[in-house]
Amino acid sequence: MTYFDVASSAPLHPVARQALVAALEEGWADPARLYREGRRARLLVDAARESAAEVVGCRPDELSFTSSGTQAVQLGVLGALAGRRRVGRRLVVSAVEHSSVLHAGEAHEAAGGTVALVGVDRMGRVSPEAFAGALTADTALACLQSANHEVGTVQPVAAVAEECRKAGVPLLVDAAQSLGRLDVPPGWSLLTASAHKWGGPPGVGLLAVRKRVRFAPVWPGDERERGRVPGFENVPAVVAAAASLRAVRAEAARLAELAELVDVIRARVPELVPDVQVVGDPVRRLPHLVTFSCLYVDGEALLSELDRAGFAVSSGSSCTSSTLTPSHVLRAMGVLSEGNVRVSLPLGTTRADVDRFLAVLPEVVRGVRERLGVSGPAASRTEPSGIEGPGPADPQAPALVVDALGRRCPLPVIELARRIGEVPAGSAVAVLSDDEAARLDIPTWCEMRGQEYLGERPAHEFGADRGSAYLVRRVEPGS
Amino acid sequence: MTYFDVASSAPLHPVARQALVAALEEGWADPARLYREGRRARLLVDAARESAAEVVGCRPDELSFTSSGTQAVQLGVLGALAGRRRVGRRLVVSAVEHSSVLHAGEAHEAAGGTVALVGVDRMGRVSPEAFAGALTADTALACLQSANHEVGTVQPVAAVAEECRKAGVPLLVDAAQSLGRLDVPPGWSLLTASAHKWGGPPGVGLLAVRKRVRFAPVWPGDERERGRVPGFENVPAVVAAAASLRAVRAEAARLAELAELVDVIRARVPELVPDVQVVGDPVRRLPHLVTFSCLYVDGEALLSELDRAGFAVSSGSSCTSSTLTPSHVLRAMGVLSEGNVRVSLPLGTTRADVDRFLAVLPEVVRGVRERLGVSGPAASRTEPSGIEGPGPADPQAPALVVDALGRRCPLPVIELARRIGEVPAGSAVAVLSDDEAARLDIPTWCEMRGQEYLGERPAHEFGADRGSAYLVRRVEPGS
Repeated sequence: MTYFDVASSAPLHPVARQALVAALEEGWADPARLYREGRRARLLVDAARESAAEVVGCRPDELSFTSSGTQAVQLGVLGALAGRRRVGRRLVVSAVEHSSVLHAGEAHEAAGGTVALVGVDRMGRVSPEAFAGALTADTALACLQSANHEVGTVQPVAAVAEECRKAGVPLLVDAAQSLGRLDVPPGWSLLTASAHKWGGPPGVGLLAVRKRVRFAPVWPGDERERGRVPGFENVPAVVAAAASLRAVRAEAARLAELAELVDVIRARVPELVPDVQVVGDPVRRLPHLVTFSCLYVDGEALLSELDRAGFAVSSGSSCTSSTLTPSHVLRAMGVLSEGNVRVSLPLGTTRADVDRFLAVLPEVVRGVRERLGVSGPAASRTEPSGIEGPGPADPQAPALVVDALGRRCPLPVIELARRIGEVPAGSAVAVLSDDEAARLDIPTWCEMRGQEYLGERPAHEFGADRGSAYLVRRVEPGS
Repeated sequence: MTYFDVASSAPLHPVARQALVAALEEGWADPARLYREGRRARLLVDAARESAAEVVGCRPDELSFTSSGTQAVQLGVLGALAGRRRVGRRLVVSAVEHSSVLHAGEAHEAAGGTVALVGVDRMGRVSPEAFAGALTADTALACLQSANHEVGTVQPVAAVAEECRKAGVPLLVDAAQSLGRLDVPPGWSLLTASAHKWGGPPGVGLLAVRKRVRFAPVWPGDERERGRVPGFENVPAVVAAAASLRAVRAEAARLAELAELVDVIRARVPELVPDVQVVGDPVRRLPHLVTFSCLYVDGEALLSELDRAGFAVSSGSSCTSSTLTPSHVLRAMGVLSEGNVRVSLPLGTTRADVDRFLAVLPEVVRGVRERLGVSGPAASRTEPSGIEGPGPADPQAPALVVDALGRRCPLPVIELARRIGEVPAGSAVAVLSDDEAARLDIPTWCEMRGQEYLGERPAHEFGADRGSAYLVRRVEPGS
C-alpha cells in the first residue's frame, strides 16, 4: 500500500514512537503532584514545551498543549474573540480556512458575533489588500492559515500580518499543514497546529498566544496549561509530539525531493488523463501536496479504485460518502470539484512510487468514466429528456432542458456533455439539478470545454419542483 | 518508590501498553477516510466502542470517546443543560463533585443558569431525600459522582437515580473513580469516565448519553463522534483504553485484597499516630482508597517527607503549594483538612507495602510536628499575643486573643492548642486568622479535643484589619 495522504494524518514518526513508549514509563503520573513521579512528569512536559516553543518561535510560557489541532483552533479563536469583546464582535477569516476555524466562526455567530469571509483567487490565495479591507474598527480577530490543506497554496501570511498589525487586529495563524515543514511566518499573534499532521501522535495540538494578546478562556477551566486547556495533561503524547517536531524540522531539507515529485505529478497528470484540472498555486505551495479534479468522474469511485490499486489518497469531492456538498475550498476557488484527488506525499516517497501512481491513474479514471457511460469526449447518446423547453418562440429560452434532478455529481455534468450536441451552436441548454456540486462544476465545465455559461435560474421556471436550472450556450459544434 | 496515588492517575496497565503500541501501527490513519488504512482505523474504533459500551452497560452508539474525563464531564453537563433549556436552567449537583463538574456549573452560572448544591453528611454521602428535595420543576440536569475521589465514599446513585426518574430529571453520573472497579450503578442518563484512572492511557474520556436524553452539543462541532466531540479521533489511545478497561474489569475480584489493606490502614493509623481523623464512609466506599487528616501537620511538608521516605500519596489540604484553600470535599463534610493524606492503592499492593507505610508514617508525622514546634499534646509554650481581649468585664468576651493573622494552616490551630491552657476552664479564646482552613479546622479541633466551639466573628471587632475571629471556650484543663 502506498500512502499518499499525509495531509490527513501522517504515520507516526519513528522518533515519536520511541519517545512515546519511553514517556509511557516515565511520564504517566499527574504533573501537578509533588512526589517524584509527578515531578518527573512535570519535567518532561516542561522540556517538551521548551522544545516545541523553539520550533514555533515563541516563549515556552506562550505555548499550551491541547488535545487536538481542532481544540487548539477552537480555544484560540473563541478565547481571542472573548478577550477583545469590548473592541467588537467581528471575526475575519479567509474563505478557505480549515473547517475547525469555520465551525468556531459559526459558534461565534450563534452567540451574536459576525464573521466576514475574505475570498481567494483561482489559486486559493487571499490578497493582502482584500484582507486589509475587511479589517474594520470593530474587528476582534483575524484568522489565516499558513497553507491550504486541500490544495497546498501557501498564503501571504507575513503581508497579512503586517496589515493586521497596522489595523491593531490580532492574527491567528492555523499552521496545521506547515509546522515542521516550512518556516513559521512572522507576525502572528496566535498560532495553532496539530501533531498528527507532522508525524506526532494523535491527541496533541498546540496553541501559542503571544504575551501581548488579550485572551479570555471561554471554556470551563482548571489549573492545567495556564487555565487555557482543561483536562489531565497527556504527558507521553506531548513528549512524543515535541520530539517528532524537532526531528521533522531537522529533516525539512528533504522536502525538496517531494517538491520535485509534486512537479512531476502536476505536469504529467494532465498529459496522461484527459479533461483534468490541476488546482492550487504551482509555485507558492506546500512542497508535498498536489490536487487535481477529473471531469465526468465520481470521487468516491475514484478513491475506491485507487485504494484497490494500492494508493491511499483523499478527495474534496461532494461525491464521496462522507459529505454531500463539494469542499468549501474548491467552491471558494471556483474550480472543478468532481473527481477531485488530493495527493500528499510522506517523506521517503520515491520517483518509482510516483511513476507507479501515474501508471495506474489513467486506467482508473478511464474505468470510472466507462462505468458512468462516458468514453472519450462525451457525446449525445441518450434518449431525449421528458421535459422540453418552451420552444424557439422565446429567444432567451433554452432549446433543450436536461432533467438531472435527483442525480448526484458527476452525473449532471455528464448529462450536459452528452446532450449539448443536440442543440445548434448559439442555442442554450438548461440543466435541472438539485445537486450542490452542479453549481460549481457546470460553470467550470463550460470554461474547460469552451462553452458559454449563462447563469443559474430557479428550476420551477422550467416546471420542476426543486433545484436550479443552469443555462449553457453551445459555442461550437461538438463538446 | 511505592505509588499509593492511583486515584490521581494509575500507571499504564500492561494490556493498555500492548494495545497502544499495536494500535500505533494499525490505527494511525484518519478513521473518516475510505482507503484501507482509514477503514482499519475505523474498525479499531468501532471494536473499542463496542467493548467499552459493554462494560459501561450501554449501546455502542450511545458512547463517545473524548480527550479526557474533564472534557467528557464538561461536554456532558453543558450539552444536557442545553438540550433541556426549555425546561429550565437549574443544575443540581452534590457539594462533593469533582472540580470538572463544579467548573462546568460555574460556566453555566456565568451564562445565566443556576446551580444548586446538595450537601453531604460527615461521611461525604448525599441523602437521596435531600437530593430529591432539590429537584424542582425547572431542573434541567442533576449530577452525582459514583464515588468520591477524595474520601472514597460511594454515593447512593441508584436511589438518587430513582428520585430523578420520578422528577423527570436526567442524571449525569461521573464514574471516574469507579468504572472498571465497581459495577455501574443503574438508572443513569449520562455517564462519564476517564481512562487514565483505570490504567488506560491519558487522553481518553468516555461520555455516554442514553438515547432518550435530550442533548444539544454546545461546542463547535464537526462530524466526529456523532457531532459530540470535535477533533481527530485518538484511535491508538481509544483502543488501549477499551482493552485495559476490559482487563481491569476482569481483575476486579482482586480489589477485595485492597479493601482488606484499606481496613488495616483505617484501623492502624489512629492507633499509631496521635490526633488523627480518618474520614469517609468505612463501609460503603471504594475498595482501594482511604483518607485521613493529622492535627498540627502541614500537608505539603507531610507529602514531601512521605515522598522522601518512598511513598507517593496525595492531599486535599490547603497547605500544599497547588492550592490556597482546603478541599471543597473536606469542607462540605465538615472534617479536618490539615495534614490531609489520601492513600489509593494500585492492584498488586501487598501487606508488606502497607506495613512499611505504617512503619514510616508515625515518625514522619512526628518529625513534621516537631519542626512546627509541636510535640505530644500541644501545650502553651509561646509568648503572649500582642493583642489582648477586652477583659473580664464583658462576660461574653474572650479572656485571650491569639493573633494568628498571616499564618498559614496548620499554624492557627497549633497556636490555639498551645495557648488555650492560658485561660481558666469556662473562659474563651479568640483566634484571629485570615487562613481559609481555620474556618474548617478550628471547629474540628474543638470536636476532637472536647473543647466548645462558640462561632466565628469579624476580626475587626478585636482590632484586626482583616480575617475572622474563631471563638473557643475551654472546657477542661489541658488541651
